[in-house]
Amino acid sequence: MDITKKYEIIKIKGESLNKVEDTLINEYPFTLFIDDEEIITLLCTPKSLKELALGFLYSEGFVESLDQIERIQIDEENGRGYLYLKYRKTLTEKLYGKRTITSGCGKGTVFYNVVDSFKSRKIHETIDLSKENVIQLSKEFNGKSELFLKTGGVHSCALSTKDEILYFEDDIGRHNALDKILGRAFLDNIDMSDKIVITSGRISSEILIKTAKREIPAIISRSAPTSLAVDMARELNILLIGFARGEKMNIYTNFPSLIF
Amino acid sequence: MDITKKYEIIKIKGESLNKVEDTLINEYPFTLFIDDEEIITLLCTPKSLKELALGFLYSEGFVESLDQIERIQIDEENGRGYLYLKYRKTLTEKLYGKRTITSGCGKGTVFYNVVDSFKSRKIHETIDLSKENVIQLSKEFNGKSELFLKTGGVHSCALSTKDEILYFEDDIGRHNALDKILGRAFLDNIDMSDKIVITSGRISSEILIKTAKREIPAIISRSAPTSLAVDMARELNILLIGFARGEKMNIYTNFPSLIF
Repeated sequence: MDITKKYEIIKIKGESLNKVEDTLINEYPFTLFIDDEEIITLLCTPKSLKELALGFLYSEGFVESLDQIERIQIDEENGRGYLYLKYRKTLTEKLYGKRTITSGCGKGTVFYNVVDSFKSRKIHETIDLSKENVIQLSKEFNGKSELFLKTGGVHSCALSTKDEILYFEDDIGRHNALDKILGRAFLDNIDMSDKIVITSGRISSEILIKTAKREIPAIISRSAPTSLAVDMARELNILLIGFARGEKMNIYTNFPSLIF
Repeated sequence: MDITKKYEIIKIKGESLNKVEDTLINEYPFTLFIDDEEIITLLCTPKSLKELALGFLYSEGFVESLDQIERIQIDEENGRGYLYLKYRKTLTEKLYGKRTITSGCGKGTVFYNVVDSFKSRKIHETIDLSKENVIQLSKEFNGKSELFLKTGGVHSCALSTKDEILYFEDDIGRHNALDKILGRAFLDNIDMSDKIVITSGRISSEILIKTAKREIPAIISRSAPTSLAVDMARELNILLIGFARGEKMNIYTNFPSLIF
């Protein structure tokens, strides 16, 4: 399984605008089974999967020593890891139901959301966003973030129009910061169809899904998206801009009407 | 509730070694209830808690509109958020059992682990680690990481002796990278009592707990720890070093025998 995936994107640097091939980190759902019972789906990088399966089950207390393990089998093609144990009774007591552990700032239900997301309504109204809007919004956002970045280890998130930031929140978790702004929008009962999510963190599938569920047409990050996030954004017509730094940005989803 | 907490730490910069007061981001367990039924514990920054509670429950589909909400009550002192609904039957069907969503690269069971961790055996054998060891290990680690940091959005993790890195892994998730090295150590059945975890990511409580469970006596990061991670490391006598960059490092836990 490839650790990275190639995507054709639009790279903007000052006045230059080019279609280029970009390499994204592959976000790979990996479902673990113990004695054919589904335990969990990890969203991970498809490398050292055997070690990940064992390490996770070990960390979570499903396995305590090598001699408990009958065999382990990795189905890389289908993203599945099967662990067979010698002593089942004692360990099956420890099993908890299916759950998904996410790649970052986890949501326990993202796997279902991954499925949901493809049921989400496509965005048909493309947002009229110019390069200058993105540069200006990123500048305003970074100014607000710096204060919090100083303390170390917090993520920031904002909800904006194409012209200005409406809400700004930060948290040790990327998801919490996004949920905070979505919560404020919920309280204020505002229309999301012309709004933009701006985040300091990576755009993983969970972040994209939260945005998609609210039918927000655009998301901007100073960091990288994952392959799964870009696949979903393309499926749902969400404008996804990454590495928005100064005059630079990468556009991962294209619209006929997108004139930069 | 304070967003940050003050800790007395040892700051090393080249030849200088000083006890200073350092400000850490507060990692705050926040448990959500719907109609007095416990839903989940979020590990978050204690700010905009009402927005976080609503945003999370909204994102997860527990609430769809404001008129479903009877009232919301935040008990900041005890880290609890109570949401009372008008139409219970339909929504309680959607409820799933207690789960913890973590601040970063989430583990679904960290809240129980937080409790567990204080039952973990204290580390009594303090690891004999010098400043030069940390500088050398960080240098070796950063060299290996760079390759992966280029693709954007991956975390690296290593297991080392005080002299050299034994295992190195990377993943889109901090936890996955750590589980990968713990899985390799598990397969190789090696003694962890003189080993060190090195991570590119923040040290949150979940990362500290995974390390504590294996009774690994030291963890080094180029990033920041959270307050909860430092509290646990102090409780369990785990050597926690953050912001290890070049000649600089912060030591968050002290040992009588630690001579730098």
